[in-house]
Amino acid sequence: MNEYSVKRTILGQLPYGSDLHDELTAIVRRENIRIGRIQALGATTHARVAYYDQNTKTYNPIEFPGGMEILNVHGNVSMRDGQPFVHIHILLGDAEGKIFGGHVLPGTKLFACEVFIDELEGAPLERQPETRTGLHLWKTGHLS
Amino acid sequence: MNEYSVKRTILGQLPYGSDLHDELTAIVRRENIRIGRIQALGATTHARVAYYDQNTKTYNPIEFPGGMEILNVHGNVSMRDGQPFVHIHILLGDAEGKIFGGHVLPGTKLFACEVFIDELEGAPLERQPETRTGLHLWKTGHLS
Amino acid sequence: MNEYSVKRTILGQLPYGSDLHDELTAIVRRENIRIGRIQALGATTHARVAYYDQNTKTYNPIEFPGGMEILNVHGNVSMRDGQPFVHIHILLGDAEGKIFGGHVLPGTKLFACEVFIDELEGAPLERQPETRTGLHLWKTGHLS
Repeated sequence: MNEYSVKRTILGQLPYGSDLHDELTAIVRRENIRIGRIQALGATTHARVAYYDQNTKTYNPIEFPGGMEILNVHGNVSMRDGQPFVHIHILLGDAEGKIFGGHVLPGTKLFACEVFIDELEGAPLERQPETRTGLHLWKTGHLS
Repeated sequence: MNEYSVKRTILGQLPYGSDLHDELTAIVRRENIRIGRIQALGATTHARVAYYDQNTKTYNPIEFPGGMEILNVHGNVSMRDGQPFVHIHILLGDAEGKIFGGHVLPGTKLFACEVFIDELEGAPLERQPETRTGLHLWKTGHLS
Repeated sequence: MNEYSVKRTILGQLPYGSDLHDELTAIVRRENIRIGRIQALGATTHARVAYYDQNTKTYNPIEFPGGMEILNVHGNVSMRDGQPFVHIHILLGDAEGKIFGGHVLPGTKLFACEVFIDELEGAPLERQPETRTGLHLWKTGHLS
């Protein structure tokens, strides 16, 4: 059983024009956050997400040019290849209130973004290749 | 006023092929989590959700066969009929980045799922039938 | 670096017929929550959200009459004009499981709503007008 407590919560905004994926990665590495939780809202000027095709085991990119609301970001922080690694999913809204989203890739540029990062204290989780899904999953992080 | 503190946070992944609703229910009962918060991301191989019709007061099921991204799960844990009970809503993305979702029913099968469960400490909340909505709501959990 | 700890978590339901934006604003002011995080699920009888047009720098309202599931609310609490201020984004589902949403405006009426509010402890954040975006952002809350 993987039990954790929250060590600290970081709250603040990301710079205009920054890249959501790369900026969050830089912050968790700079702060040495090895395990954690991410939440955010805001707006993008351009979004680049992926849908994972479970049959071909490939991430297929999808682009959303133009201003969109960030209605939700949920993600986590764990270790991969010896470094803090962010896994984040996003939900975006257009001018008619229609919603799009996916697995966040580098290339998602921010208009504004307000972020919570909870740093956890407890056993680290390391991502490793998993054959059946083709994903990098936590070897020791099973809840069942 | 219902005030709580976080007792512990459980973080980990659910098994390939497991049922999101039933697996979370089994975990909170095994761990005796009587009040809490749930967040998750991942992917489904088949999803089964409901829309609650406020006029007929019935949950109408909607099925989403095939692989979809889990962009967000938000839910809570409280007591119903003397047992820990999960109430969870989900947002799913298809291959074009279009989003669907609803109230999670048994029958949502996982490809992968990374889950945070915050166990809270404080007064338990018990779900009981409420006439106007036809829902099971918290009798003592009013914020206003 | 803006670091916080969670002082308390408030959990409960909002009244049938209440206004999501105004009710949350009233609660954080009554409880004197100056900085915090909000999450919720439930259902609306009528929703009123906005899409922010980044070119004209205006919030354009969008209305969703009729019953919809609240699949996710994510928001934050900070200070504006000397008072606790809520910034909340919402995702809504219709009878076919299609999703809509935006920045929550007054006028979103609740059928049911179960809310978590985390009150944080640490440096307050104050919203002030920011020229480039036309938004009210945190002057001191930069993570990068």
